[in-house]
Amino acid sequence: MVGKIEHIGIAVKDLESANALYTRLLGISPYKQEIVESEGVHTSFFMAGVNKIELLQGINEGNAISSFIEKRGEGIHHIAFHVEDIEAEMARLKAEGFRLIHEKPKRGADNKLICFVHPKDSQGVLIELCQDINEEKNIKK
Amino acid sequence: MVGKIEHIGIAVKDLESANALYTRLLGISPYKQEIVESEGVHTSFFMAGVNKIELLQGINEGNAISSFIEKRGEGIHHIAFHVEDIEAEMARLKAEGFRLIHEKPKRGADNKLICFVHPKDSQGVLIELCQDINEEKNIKK
Repeated sequence: MVGKIEHIGIAVKDLESANALYTRLLGISPYKQEIVESEGVHTSFFMAGVNKIELLQGINEGNAISSFIEKRGEGIHHIAFHVEDIEAEMARLKAEGFRLIHEKPKRGADNKLICFVHPKDSQGVLIELCQDINEEKNIKK
Repeated sequence: MVGKIEHIGIAVKDLESANALYTRLLGISPYKQEIVESEGVHTSFFMAGVNKIELLQGINEGNAISSFIEKRGEGIHHIAFHVEDIEAEMARLKAEGFRLIHEKPKRGADNKLICFVHPKDSQGVLIELCQDINEEKNIKK
């Protein structure tokens, strides 16, 4: 089973203006920014209680965030759930008939191992699983 | 400022089949269902760690969920943040220039006082504020 909402990912066109907007909206400043080269995104994180809001701007050709904005406009892109053991949770979901976007966990922003469930199997909602790297138990380095 | 993510609201066409899907997806069963007549919705709640997932199906003419699905398809409808004092937070947002969908907190599902920020002021993301009714301090009954 999944744990708490680790973060909500929000697709934005311009990270700088979105940072200013969400700072006013949430009453909180972003605690870090990070470029994830492998995903072609520039991200920014806000802490909301025990949860995080991740703003994502696409920065290269063919990145998923810019395609999402082209199709649907800016807005909520994914929900990420915290899991203790990502490989066990991936196996559970596969056994339940869900397709995963990648077969092995990959490295995401904010020091996480991540995996996405195919949104066609979850009524259009893109679900991410997130395990803290320092909780890494089953992944061979 | 806002607190943790109280819940994520997901618009679905059919609550019964969505309940079955999300039970398999999250590995958790819904802990309650509730009809909110004033909003014309039938809702179902799942606990994910300290956060909740709320599935919403429209059940009357002109409800917001069915219109959302007609325009954008099923998917994430809103993010609700926990606040300790909803009237103070509404005043803070108004002072920051955000439009609120209603001027006074109203009663929502799951024993909450709620308020929505106009999504045109938050780049298409519908933001809800939620205060527990038993934390009610400033609201005259």
